[in-house]
Amino acid sequence: MFNKKIDSITPYTPGQSIESIKQQFGLKNIIKLASNENPLGPAYDFKRCNTIVEHYPDYNAHPLIGELAKKFNVNTNQIILGNGSDELLQIVGLACIEPGDEILSSERTFSEYEFVAHITGAKFIKAPIKNYTYSVENLISAITTKTKIIFIANPNNPTGTYINETDVIKLLKATPKTTLVVIDEAYAEYVDAPDYPNTLNLIKQYPNLMITRTFSKIYGLANLRVGYGIAQDRVVNQLQKVRQPFNVNGIALACAYQSLKNDAFVQKSIQLNNEGKNYLIKNLRELKCTIPPSQGNFLYIDFESVNGVQLCKELIKHGVIVRSMKSFGQNNAIRVTIGTLKQNETFIKELHECLKKL
Amino acid sequence: MFNKKIDSITPYTPGQSIESIKQQFGLKNIIKLASNENPLGPAYDFKRCNTIVEHYPDYNAHPLIGELAKKFNVNTNQIILGNGSDELLQIVGLACIEPGDEILSSERTFSEYEFVAHITGAKFIKAPIKNYTYSVENLISAITTKTKIIFIANPNNPTGTYINETDVIKLLKATPKTTLVVIDEAYAEYVDAPDYPNTLNLIKQYPNLMITRTFSKIYGLANLRVGYGIAQDRVVNQLQKVRQPFNVNGIALACAYQSLKNDAFVQKSIQLNNEGKNYLIKNLRELKCTIPPSQGNFLYIDFESVNGVQLCKELIKHGVIVRSMKSFGQNNAIRVTIGTLKQNETFIKELHECLKKL
Repeated sequence: MFNKKIDSITPYTPGQSIESIKQQFGLKNIIKLASNENPLGPAYDFKRCNTIVEHYPDYNAHPLIGELAKKFNVNTNQIILGNGSDELLQIVGLACIEPGDEILSSERTFSEYEFVAHITGAKFIKAPIKNYTYSVENLISAITTKTKIIFIANPNNPTGTYINETDVIKLLKATPKTTLVVIDEAYAEYVDAPDYPNTLNLIKQYPNLMITRTFSKIYGLANLRVGYGIAQDRVVNQLQKVRQPFNVNGIALACAYQSLKNDAFVQKSIQLNNEGKNYLIKNLRELKCTIPPSQGNFLYIDFESVNGVQLCKELIKHGVIVRSMKSFGQNNAIRVTIGTLKQNETFIKELHECLKKL
Repeated sequence: MFNKKIDSITPYTPGQSIESIKQQFGLKNIIKLASNENPLGPAYDFKRCNTIVEHYPDYNAHPLIGELAKKFNVNTNQIILGNGSDELLQIVGLACIEPGDEILSSERTFSEYEFVAHITGAKFIKAPIKNYTYSVENLISAITTKTKIIFIANPNNPTGTYINETDVIKLLKATPKTTLVVIDEAYAEYVDAPDYPNTLNLIKQYPNLMITRTFSKIYGLANLRVGYGIAQDRVVNQLQKVRQPFNVNGIALACAYQSLKNDAFVQKSIQLNNEGKNYLIKNLRELKCTIPPSQGNFLYIDFESVNGVQLCKELIKHGVIVRSMKSFGQNNAIRVTIGTLKQNETFIKELHECLKKL
């Protein structure tokens, strides 16, 4: 009954949830630093949202689209919304891929890109990573006439590293006009690197460039599922054709709209993240590990000789959920979300305890 | 940049929303009877839902799955959830279709089936409808070696008619074991026909049968997006492979779970629907139109010589949104959702006013 392409799909490994750990271990106090969520909670209280639950959501008549357009100084028809940016990446795949096509991305990056290749029947090509960072040279070398989509996570999940504007332009110049370059900027709001690309500007010059962003990270609405894509209107018009008509739920539309106005929350989240990043780096320094510089709300910790899966299992028993990098092919690494100061302290304390036991 | 298959996609025509009509006509009081929503509202107040908005939803650890399994006396691994049943139909398409395959359904049915064919690159075959009803004979005649999916809306949207158990069994017996038969039972809770198929029983005997149901109709949660599919575990396991990991939002999970327990609301909704159906049929009798017997929460009104698009435009000016059947290829028909008694009275009154003007 089923097509051959799904045989090769290995199920996505999400960060374990607090509920599942509670059920499994009977623990009461759990800190989840596994999925790069905002430890301050949501930028807007969904219980204050006004929406008519029994009616289908009307995405086009919702003011969120206008608010986003205003914020980014683009037209409303340059914006497409998704059930999380996950769905937007799938929409791109559905709109672009034909049998035999290739999707290009990097080693050690967000697994959704490979998932999109699997469900659309594309061949997934991973350019080698260099020093924990996407290598634009390696990406350019891997482009073929069959490359229909290039997915770039910037900053990269899970390593936290970024590609600067010069390199992004180099890639865009080397990419055929019939290949869509999708830059996933889920963590853009956390970035402080001055040479981080101004992709909104680049979209004007490159009709084959699209960026995606999300309300799941700094805005703290992961549970509600809303991401957005920005590109030239010609691209967005094509993508709209393969979008389900009611893909984004109404609570998500309402809360995202209100959240966009909450600049103070965003600023507070950035400050907390910077403080937490400094604290963690300082307190991890003495361990035998490499931590690539992170522009996100998480750190990638590459140990010299600690098994990441074992470490995560031990940490869970201590009530701390972080993410093993095994599903990224890395046995000695973990990824930890930067939490509140108290969560970070607990993580460091429990990490030292657990490392002693391994 | 884009694949050829999307060229043929005509965008979905949803029922117009209250917001869009307000914006367009500056009206204040609007009755929406266009999208088969529950006029009593939702079965559960989302503002009472407890969920952690900043965390990704964990579908597998959520008690909704267990509650559904209990209600339908199946195992939890026989259930898959979707971002509305729309997404489940897409998931089926992604899992089953290879280039050259066919999807079979009927004329004058839910447009999502054809949409799934478009996005997956399948050829969409419409069996002729008979007397406003899916014809099992015509479906069986249209099965080829390329038919991978048969989509059946039962009751059918927009005509409200149903296929009985004898006919469903006839179809299942005539269908190759490698063709998945998906019966979309979005309106099942409203049905009172005694020979409506017990598909949960049939699933035990037919490994190629799947049913889908939704919280968008009788449970009044259209805005939150949650539908579910039930089949043998072998089918569900395959479908899970192409499902996005966080496809259903957490508020939807929480409200659906609470709603499932609200039997009193379901009973009240059924009663209101039956009363409204009788009232509308009685008051439409004098008009020159055919109304096929409906098992849903809506009526299909086929006029002898009234233009449906014109009638809908006129009704909107009077503050009543109903659905023209033009997108289903029917120029002289409309579909009206059965509302509250007051909404039904207003509809009848305004309908008579509008018909005079046409």
